[in-house]
Amino acid sequence: MEGFRIRSILLTGSDRGIGLGLVEQFLQLPYPPQLIFATCRHPDGPEGQVLKELARRYSNVSTLVLLQLDVTDPHSIKEATKKVEERVAGCGLNLLINNAAIACETTLSSENAQNMMSLYATNTIGPMLVCQAFLPLLKMAAQQSRHSGMSCSKAAVVNMSSSYGSISLVDGWEWRQDVSYRCSKAALNMLTRCQSLGYGPYGILCVSIHPGGVKTHLGVEQGVLSVASSTRGIIQVLSRLSDQDNGTFLDWEGQTVPW
Amino acid sequence: MEGFRIRSILLTGSDRGIGLGLVEQFLQLPYPPQLIFATCRHPDGPEGQVLKELARRYSNVSTLVLLQLDVTDPHSIKEATKKVEERVAGCGLNLLINNAAIACETTLSSENAQNMMSLYATNTIGPMLVCQAFLPLLKMAAQQSRHSGMSCSKAAVVNMSSSYGSISLVDGWEWRQDVSYRCSKAALNMLTRCQSLGYGPYGILCVSIHPGGVKTHLGVEQGVLSVASSTRGIIQVLSRLSDQDNGTFLDWEGQTVPW
Repeated sequence: MEGFRIRSILLTGSDRGIGLGLVEQFLQLPYPPQLIFATCRHPDGPEGQVLKELARRYSNVSTLVLLQLDVTDPHSIKEATKKVEERVAGCGLNLLINNAAIACETTLSSENAQNMMSLYATNTIGPMLVCQAFLPLLKMAAQQSRHSGMSCSKAAVVNMSSSYGSISLVDGWEWRQDVSYRCSKAALNMLTRCQSLGYGPYGILCVSIHPGGVKTHLGVEQGVLSVASSTRGIIQVLSRLSDQDNGTFLDWEGQTVPW
Repeated sequence: MEGFRIRSILLTGSDRGIGLGLVEQFLQLPYPPQLIFATCRHPDGPEGQVLKELARRYSNVSTLVLLQLDVTDPHSIKEATKKVEERVAGCGLNLLINNAAIACETTLSSENAQNMMSLYATNTIGPMLVCQAFLPLLKMAAQQSRHSGMSCSKAAVVNMSSSYGSISLVDGWEWRQDVSYRCSKAALNMLTRCQSLGYGPYGILCVSIHPGGVKTHLGVEQGVLSVASSTRGIIQVLSRLSDQDNGTFLDWEGQTVPW
């Protein structure tokens, strides 16, 4: 992790769960990012307070910028993009982490169209729209890098997926059926693959990450992994990513998750 | 194919492309189904005429019932279910083929939220809603069967997918990007897996089928396979399905397609 240096990072859904845990871990790196754009739907809500406190505590090593960003709202995405563009001042954005997600406890029989739509909008379409919006800044970062190979320090898109979205595993079915969540994450994995093919030629690395069985507000996972262990693992994995990982699905320990 | 006998079948999107081809092939079986519910959005439109002509031509071997069914409209699904329930007269429904689908030529940069939503509604949520609606009739057919193993003659759900929805293949990327279509079909494959786990215990077999590179009105596929060759192949594959195929993804020749 010694050599892991990223200039700028943007995370969605960064005010709680895995998102907040990632912000904390990034701030504790030997060389923290210069700029961390911690975005969420309600930065002025109670959960934004934790981020504001982190911004104060780490102000000597990193600039933590709290931004409003609702991944289902094109206007909100546009406004956030403008603000990030100003702050990065011609250096682009190195790492985009699409972490914002919602879940709803459902079964095959209770699942309905509205819920399917709602989860797809946030968990799948959101990451697509956010990535489209920040693509010029990601390309800029890739172009300005002195390194030839792909990496998170150069330019990357990380889609936070889940083993629940693994079509071959259908992980945890006995625990939670959650068809809408699973379908949205399987579709997100397809998006990762499309992005890896479409953005790879620009030097932008794209991966899906399964954070492990972490019990968060989403309530999907049954596991006992702590947010700190998961996010520490994820950042170690991100620090090692290279060309060969473009378009893959890895867990918090770097193991490949089957599609 | 000699021993392949299904009492009742329902197909969505049966007025053209693969759907219409399947209806024609089923009618030409040595033992055609007694009841074929050929559903589509506009049965009284110009394309419904072909089905009406087929109904007349094959009236001595099979009853082809033309029904209005829009997979995105819960009221339409409910009305069609009622009509099917009356016609099957306590015997249930043996085979549900979720074939209706839409596509839109897009790229990673031109893709938008509205298009993503629209394709998800028809290609993924539609099959889920239709299956929920016909589940009582599928269960009824499974219960009444004298056979212990699973089969299309007993009770089955076939989701017409595509190798374009294979996350590991991202088939035909150079030809068509179509992110919305790919994501909707990857999600449909996840739905197939969930259905296979949830409905399998009731004796209902669930599979995803890739029809091959058939050039239809959808315009997604580049291939040269004819509708007749594809649908003949699909019906041969369906005739051989058993317990071990529940929850799999097979092409028109019976080969496994990777998720």
